[in-house]
Amino acid sequence: MGVSTTGTVLYPRTMVVVMAPGATEEEIAHVTRRVEETGGQAFVSRGVTRTIIGLVGDLESFHGLNLRSMAGVQDVYRISDPYKLVSLQHHPERSTVHVGPAGRQVPIGPETFTFIAGPCAVESAQQTLEAAEMAKAAGATLLRGGAFKPRTSPYAFQGLGLKGLEILSDVREVTGLPIVTEVVDARDVPVVAEHADMLQIGTRNAGNFGLLQAVGECGKPVLLKRGMTSTIEEWLMAAEYVAQRGNLDVVLCERGIRTFEPSTRNTLDISAVPVVQATSHLPIIVDPSHAGGRRDLVVPLARAAIAVGADGVIVDVHPDPEHALCDGPQALFGADLRALAQAVRQLPPMVGRRV
Amino acid sequence: MGVSTTGTVLYPRTMVVVMAPGATEEEIAHVTRRVEETGGQAFVSRGVTRTIIGLVGDLESFHGLNLRSMAGVQDVYRISDPYKLVSLQHHPERSTVHVGPAGRQVPIGPETFTFIAGPCAVESAQQTLEAAEMAKAAGATLLRGGAFKPRTSPYAFQGLGLKGLEILSDVREVTGLPIVTEVVDARDVPVVAEHADMLQIGTRNAGNFGLLQAVGECGKPVLLKRGMTSTIEEWLMAAEYVAQRGNLDVVLCERGIRTFEPSTRNTLDISAVPVVQATSHLPIIVDPSHAGGRRDLVVPLARAAIAVGADGVIVDVHPDPEHALCDGPQALFGADLRALAQAVRQLPPMVGRRV
Amino acid sequence: MGVSTTGTVLYPRTMVVVMAPGATEEEIAHVTRRVEETGGQAFVSRGVTRTIIGLVGDLESFHGLNLRSMAGVQDVYRISDPYKLVSLQHHPERSTVHVGPAGRQVPIGPETFTFIAGPCAVESAQQTLEAAEMAKAAGATLLRGGAFKPRTSPYAFQGLGLKGLEILSDVREVTGLPIVTEVVDARDVPVVAEHADMLQIGTRNAGNFGLLQAVGECGKPVLLKRGMTSTIEEWLMAAEYVAQRGNLDVVLCERGIRTFEPSTRNTLDISAVPVVQATSHLPIIVDPSHAGGRRDLVVPLARAAIAVGADGVIVDVHPDPEHALCDGPQALFGADLRALAQAVRQLPPMVGRRV
Amino acid sequence: MGVSTTGTVLYPRTMVVVMAPGATEEEIAHVTRRVEETGGQAFVSRGVTRTIIGLVGDLESFHGLNLRSMAGVQDVYRISDPYKLVSLQHHPERSTVHVGPAGRQVPIGPETFTFIAGPCAVESAQQTLEAAEMAKAAGATLLRGGAFKPRTSPYAFQGLGLKGLEILSDVREVTGLPIVTEVVDARDVPVVAEHADMLQIGTRNAGNFGLLQAVGECGKPVLLKRGMTSTIEEWLMAAEYVAQRGNLDVVLCERGIRTFEPSTRNTLDISAVPVVQATSHLPIIVDPSHAGGRRDLVVPLARAAIAVGADGVIVDVHPDPEHALCDGPQALFGADLRALAQAVRQLPPMVGRRV
Repeated sequence: MGVSTTGTVLYPRTMVVVMAPGATEEEIAHVTRRVEETGGQAFVSRGVTRTIIGLVGDLESFHGLNLRSMAGVQDVYRISDPYKLVSLQHHPERSTVHVGPAGRQVPIGPETFTFIAGPCAVESAQQTLEAAEMAKAAGATLLRGGAFKPRTSPYAFQGLGLKGLEILSDVREVTGLPIVTEVVDARDVPVVAEHADMLQIGTRNAGNFGLLQAVGECGKPVLLKRGMTSTIEEWLMAAEYVAQRGNLDVVLCERGIRTFEPSTRNTLDISAVPVVQATSHLPIIVDPSHAGGRRDLVVPLARAAIAVGADGVIVDVHPDPEHALCDGPQALFGADLRALAQAVRQLPPMVGRRV
Repeated sequence: MGVSTTGTVLYPRTMVVVMAPGATEEEIAHVTRRVEETGGQAFVSRGVTRTIIGLVGDLESFHGLNLRSMAGVQDVYRISDPYKLVSLQHHPERSTVHVGPAGRQVPIGPETFTFIAGPCAVESAQQTLEAAEMAKAAGATLLRGGAFKPRTSPYAFQGLGLKGLEILSDVREVTGLPIVTEVVDARDVPVVAEHADMLQIGTRNAGNFGLLQAVGECGKPVLLKRGMTSTIEEWLMAAEYVAQRGNLDVVLCERGIRTFEPSTRNTLDISAVPVVQATSHLPIIVDPSHAGGRRDLVVPLARAAIAVGADGVIVDVHPDPEHALCDGPQALFGADLRALAQAVRQLPPMVGRRV
Repeated sequence: MGVSTTGTVLYPRTMVVVMAPGATEEEIAHVTRRVEETGGQAFVSRGVTRTIIGLVGDLESFHGLNLRSMAGVQDVYRISDPYKLVSLQHHPERSTVHVGPAGRQVPIGPETFTFIAGPCAVESAQQTLEAAEMAKAAGATLLRGGAFKPRTSPYAFQGLGLKGLEILSDVREVTGLPIVTEVVDARDVPVVAEHADMLQIGTRNAGNFGLLQAVGECGKPVLLKRGMTSTIEEWLMAAEYVAQRGNLDVVLCERGIRTFEPSTRNTLDISAVPVVQATSHLPIIVDPSHAGGRRDLVVPLARAAIAVGADGVIVDVHPDPEHALCDGPQALFGADLRALAQAVRQLPPMVGRRV
Repeated sequence: MGVSTTGTVLYPRTMVVVMAPGATEEEIAHVTRRVEETGGQAFVSRGVTRTIIGLVGDLESFHGLNLRSMAGVQDVYRISDPYKLVSLQHHPERSTVHVGPAGRQVPIGPETFTFIAGPCAVESAQQTLEAAEMAKAAGATLLRGGAFKPRTSPYAFQGLGLKGLEILSDVREVTGLPIVTEVVDARDVPVVAEHADMLQIGTRNAGNFGLLQAVGECGKPVLLKRGMTSTIEEWLMAAEYVAQRGNLDVVLCERGIRTFEPSTRNTLDISAVPVVQATSHLPIIVDPSHAGGRRDLVVPLARAAIAVGADGVIVDVHPDPEHALCDGPQALFGADLRALAQAVRQLPPMVGRRV
């Protein structure tokens, strides 16, 4: 137990079974026997009013037992992390993911601070090139831009699709910036992987396991946004889906969670950055544009992201936000973009990072 | 242990301390020694990678130890319910609370279904009497009505105060209906207890511990609304505050919790009824008016409350909702009130209750 | 405007633009001009401190204007429902969806109450048949059962896939019960549609727009679970995605939303039933098993669902919950299932429905 | 209208009434007439399918009309901020609050960064003095410490009360640090105001309006923590309750909100800082200790608070966290406290503030 003979990561897991006050000896023995039948070990602690059973062994087998359904069982606690490949426990050094073609790769990791910018949606060659040039001038080293857009309404602009990917490729040629773009359907993964340097999984697809597995096999780094309603544990399990298909080049992106507060589109969970860093080796960046949904919040939230220790930020920029087809109200330009550029130059060295 | 020698309720509690994988023998011994110093017992289970320590003894003493802060400790789980006097564990029969003067007491408990109705706010003698007569005609046996109103804005109508209590007393004389009314300040408890048959603690005061203790000493039954953001455990702890001052005549009232859903004012947590009934002996009723905040939802939600097994409902009625000073949009009258009256007559017998 | 010349549904929409206190005449004129350029109408109301502009015309065009980004604009309110095909506004009679082969179709709609039951996951032919027979004996007329299971962990049981579909088909032959089963990947829609009578979209795929569009073209009815973090409006927009591809045979299923309350897996939003019925013509059922995640809550919550006016319930049953591979703790059997069968026979006639 | 003749602040407010598609002329006229009867103005905009009425006048009068209850009315939107005295609209310069006796006042406001530290609870003279000296050595200029503790359990340590206030006064004499301490009951306001330099309202009392009014009359500055489930608007309304009694020396404190994420005690809503600063003139600080509830998050979250533009931070420190009677797991000491001291010295100048 705990010794992998197959090359995959295996390790002992622990659960605690709390028996109800009146649980009988037979009920206790039943739990113990079933645990041992799966190859696990059971340690029984008898208290004055209650018995507690500690389990050591394979967590998945224990789940199959339905311990909670057994007579006399009151509660069951899981102890170890449910994720393996993305856990810091088994990979104590924080990872750096490299994005882009050999020779001009952009690192995202613990020593640097990476600035990603671009338009929310690719609308035309002209608009994309202008946005990319704005981004580059402000210090960005990766270009974001959406060709496939998941939209709440079937009547809203859904993106240019393949045409958008081609525009992004062309703009990369001109600017030299590697490209991050979203994929929303497992059937599109090959074509997106052909054009993009990094594939983004959006917040609405955090539980789309088929898509996660597909990008796990695509051979390119993945930018995995947090589901707007995912716990941090669920988000890391989504990363585990990608990793489990062999792709460990995953960068996490905190982008706000759904709460009761209406003054921002979502609530940026800034604590997620140090919480993730305490439990996973994957890099983590922050998206202040989609979290707040308001242009006036982007610069202060980006500053907070740098100070809290994020490995990068990703922001929307647009040459003409009033005519943007998607999320214009949060796109930066002019003085706000200059303020962001300044923050990205000045603050990271204060927290021990190269820009 | 578990045997009270002082007249207060004491019983064995259990916690589980999970040590980190690399915890040393000294760290384990330190935990054990500190637990034993408080008079508790510690049971050590050694697994392959980890040690688990089960504790039996007084939970409050264990809290004082700050187990989570000790070297080598990874996590601490509490097992028993934190509430005592309101727990079903120590009082396995469900309670009935009787409201009103001797001779015409109204029961709220497991065998009956109690219908409470009245205006959100007492505005005038005339309006209160009319609302009370509407309520009585529809089958209500208790009158609700607010004299002290907690309002989000300091500029909104705050209630008639003492004058409102006097109106309620007069209307009780005329209609014979005992009165439930809210108290919002510990300093007002004596005067409210003098006039009312049951004191209501509103959703905003679920964490106002001084007020909870004050009504614990008032000698009248208490209607304890759930905090709109209280977990069920916190709500039962609030009831424990009342009970701990000697007042066990507490009726719980589910009135909706704050969630991300905007189409209702709050989300009625209908599951709270059977969840509470599985863990506490206190009666529980439902307020469909304040949960939804919409007149068209009151009747269907009241039906759901009866069917799920609640011990009663409390609803807003008003003779002239358009001119109501408070929460007019949810007050029942006319056809809706007749539909509710019919549901309250017909459904409770289907789930084994007298009306 | 409001007159469709193309056969698709079009109708006037209204928005309200609130100008900031100091907005200039030019800014007001700019808004008005841009609205009129899209073919809309703008009505200007000048107050003492502020100007308000009411818009009538095509909502999608107005969205393209990015009104919120314009100088002088403080806020923008949308008035009409954003969904069209599923809206009660354009289809004032509530719909009935028929599931199953011609000759033995099962209706789900406003006049009946439909009981759907079966195992959470198809584990074997034997277990599925036994569960189906339990379900049928209890009064169920449709069989649920999962062949493709979306699981949070890549290491958990993922379902039998095609083999599971074949088992379900065989069990339909024996029992005569039409089948509802989940599809999790757009690539699987054809094979699932070949075997199943109704395709289920699970809570995690409520924002998987490619999958929604795929089932919109599958030719079979769709059971659309609410995203555990979807607002009712977002859920109806997901239904609109299906409908917009030509499939109006959509049944909604409330299954609990994510809240702060930990005592239930999710919080059943029972109010969603009357709220949906006030705004959409689609049938709506309730899943009390997945909402609470606890066997002891299934029967009371199912009773509440009937009483609130749902068109049906869907519950997990299992012949041997202790050995279930998925969600055993919530599966009904024995006395609980008999209690549910009784509720499903007795309560619907009380609220004007045939069983 | 908008001209106060009484010395209180009055100004024009605006609402928008949306009539239902089939509203009759009489219904429209009824709304208009009622509005005009209250002294307001109504502007009617007739669209193709719907009529919109814009209102200008006194918002509270309009609330009294119950517009939503009127026949033909579909929806009502409020436009202006509901708070007045704390609004930036009427007081465009950001305020500085001064805490402490004349001659050694500590400012909290837009030009400085204020570091407040101390023990969660006053446990003894010795512990309080040691914590105060730790705080001062780390750069704190105000001392926090709780004498009255609101606790979820009636069986938990409730604070030393008056004895605790005396200890705080003594420690102020020794260290020179002005004192911030919580008051939980309106009856205690005079005695707390006599000893403390600033009165804290805790998260559980954000809706305890009697207490808010009491501190509004106490003559000392108030530190108003956000209710863990208050929207920003509700929080500002709570501040308005204090201000409306004549006390404008209110400092807001963001301390985390309740969300679905379990890895932190609450979710620090870092966006609240710029959101509040865009709408209110009151100073705002951040409490990273109570937000996260974890010592390892305090320093990164404090850094984020500085970078986002907060006017200060308040943190728990303790000379011996393992033996703390309250919230030991989040109290700083040793290396963490030194890291915080360094951040508080170095970062504020980067965002334009004096320490």
